[in-house]
Amino acid sequence: MSKYWSDAIKDLTPYTPGEQPKVDNLIKLNTNENPYPPAPAAIEALNSFDKDRLRLYSDPDCSALKEGLAAYHGVERHSVFVGNGSDEVLALAFMAFFRQPQPLLLPETTYSFYDVYCHLYDIKYQQIPLTAEFGIDLADYDRPNGGIIFANPNAPTGRALPLSEIEALLQRNTESLVIVDEAYVDFGADSAIDLTHRYDNVLVIQTFSKSRSLAGLRVGYAIGHKDLIDGLERVKNSFNSYPLDMLAIAGATASLQDEDYFQQTNQKIIDSREWTAQQLVQLGFDSLPSCTNFLFTQHKFLEGAELMGYLRGNNILVRHFSKPGIDNYLRITIGTQQEMEALVETLRNHPDL
Amino acid sequence: MSKYWSDAIKDLTPYTPGEQPKVDNLIKLNTNENPYPPAPAAIEALNSFDKDRLRLYSDPDCSALKEGLAAYHGVERHSVFVGNGSDEVLALAFMAFFRQPQPLLLPETTYSFYDVYCHLYDIKYQQIPLTAEFGIDLADYDRPNGGIIFANPNAPTGRALPLSEIEALLQRNTESLVIVDEAYVDFGADSAIDLTHRYDNVLVIQTFSKSRSLAGLRVGYAIGHKDLIDGLERVKNSFNSYPLDMLAIAGATASLQDEDYFQQTNQKIIDSREWTAQQLVQLGFDSLPSCTNFLFTQHKFLEGAELMGYLRGNNILVRHFSKPGIDNYLRITIGTQQEMEALVETLRNHPDL
Repeated sequence: MSKYWSDAIKDLTPYTPGEQPKVDNLIKLNTNENPYPPAPAAIEALNSFDKDRLRLYSDPDCSALKEGLAAYHGVERHSVFVGNGSDEVLALAFMAFFRQPQPLLLPETTYSFYDVYCHLYDIKYQQIPLTAEFGIDLADYDRPNGGIIFANPNAPTGRALPLSEIEALLQRNTESLVIVDEAYVDFGADSAIDLTHRYDNVLVIQTFSKSRSLAGLRVGYAIGHKDLIDGLERVKNSFNSYPLDMLAIAGATASLQDEDYFQQTNQKIIDSREWTAQQLVQLGFDSLPSCTNFLFTQHKFLEGAELMGYLRGNNILVRHFSKPGIDNYLRITIGTQQEMEALVETLRNHPDL
Repeated sequence: MSKYWSDAIKDLTPYTPGEQPKVDNLIKLNTNENPYPPAPAAIEALNSFDKDRLRLYSDPDCSALKEGLAAYHGVERHSVFVGNGSDEVLALAFMAFFRQPQPLLLPETTYSFYDVYCHLYDIKYQQIPLTAEFGIDLADYDRPNGGIIFANPNAPTGRALPLSEIEALLQRNTESLVIVDEAYVDFGADSAIDLTHRYDNVLVIQTFSKSRSLAGLRVGYAIGHKDLIDGLERVKNSFNSYPLDMLAIAGATASLQDEDYFQQTNQKIIDSREWTAQQLVQLGFDSLPSCTNFLFTQHKFLEGAELMGYLRGNNILVRHFSKPGIDNYLRITIGTQQEMEALVETLRNHPDL
């Protein structure tokens, strides 16, 4: 603390990202990274990029990437906003849309950056409990609000909502904006991007970090009505003109061209997830149905924190949240099939199993 | 405009970056980019980087880069903050330090993002006029304030303050933070980094975009007392965990190793600047003394806007600001010697010269 700090930052409790260990030879199933490399087209674009050009500023409008995303998702270019990872897109969206007289509504258990943004921007918010089965019931969001945000599929639960329920919410909730954070959507849920053609009160946020294996390149985006995108651009251009560097733009844009690779790696992850879920049942685990690249699971009698420690002792990292209500659960990222077999084998060797 | 916008963003007037033209064969002297490629060590680091690793998140703490900068500048690692270009570092610093009851003081003519940040974060500010010679007189800043920021050398004027005057300000102004934006310092001014060892009320911000030819990689940094850096980290980690991608970290870190290249390219730019300034005198221009990679200059009888248009018609881009008081000036970035010769030749061919 310093006397030069603004008052507003003295009470901030920053988000804690998952551990990025400096040692090798760990099986890293703790931060929902993709176990497969980025698309060959992306790697080729980065390798062949003329690095001398880095002396110039990157395109502040990221035109190539916006055009690629517009074509990929079948939307207009003016419906696309891009940012430095979906975290930056989310932060700018909170500032652009959620500083309202009424409170923002968000699930009690969800991506834990959302309430950090509320503190950063002094946004009132209400956390809506999940259902007994860790689901989101959108009927619970029918109350006065200055905005609604949820992840679909939700994290760390992995459960997804059907699009029909999201559309019904958009029809009921016309006075505030609904943001659907689809970081994990490509692993088995339906995207709300199609709804952006018909509703001006929905903004969909996606990322290149998970299904496109580009977490290390920091690219996220939002799709929605032109007026929403204009609001995001206005805030972005008052904050940082060039948040995406030339290489991030080039790599992300190229990755969109490799649809076969994209589908194949996603399917491999889905297959390994389903295999792992079945194996975990046999070991006494109870997992939520997952539409993501992770499993949210608890054991019948072994405690979550103890299991995390046991796995860590065997060079396998998984994520555990000490939050009440979910503190007996582990969030296990789906790695390669070989990594998941090692996980299952390690659990099978647990002295109490 | 959309009814879903937060009130605060409706009145924002975003910063306008210099034009990034899509056509080739222009001599681009409008955005203060470095005409020489990045250091060979940086290019080699980017080319040899194992792109498969991009599937993982980048180091949220950017340890390698912070350690490189600490060693380079002879400061402690905990005195270094890094961000997505110095624009992001500045924006986070405004949020961390300048939301105060008293107004922020800044020069009336300076980097035009400063007052954009004030509007974004609802920070009161007072603009202090420059002297008649377009200089900054720090005695003018001896008034109640919630912070002081200036660029040294200043932009777009190019003039620099001696370190002794900055140190005297730090001794007088102990109740608020002073930020010195040193984007251009490597082209001929003295850095205030040494003062950070002795004063806890100064934060120095630098960038890899100008003297290190890495504008396209988006890396900036701040150096100051540990408590100031802690404040920046707290805001950063409440906004975006991973603003620097793996390639930006790798390229910027490697560029620090190539000191000879760094000194040589800076000297070439300084030499071309002095040559150009002399030529411009002969053509009837009056330029301010520059410690930067640009010249701020006006002609005896030709208007700035007209000259910008004439040069544009000859495929040379320079920057013109329509702000009263400086609207007859051009800001001309120093390119290669060959580009500056082309500029001078084109001006010499002006029908009225």
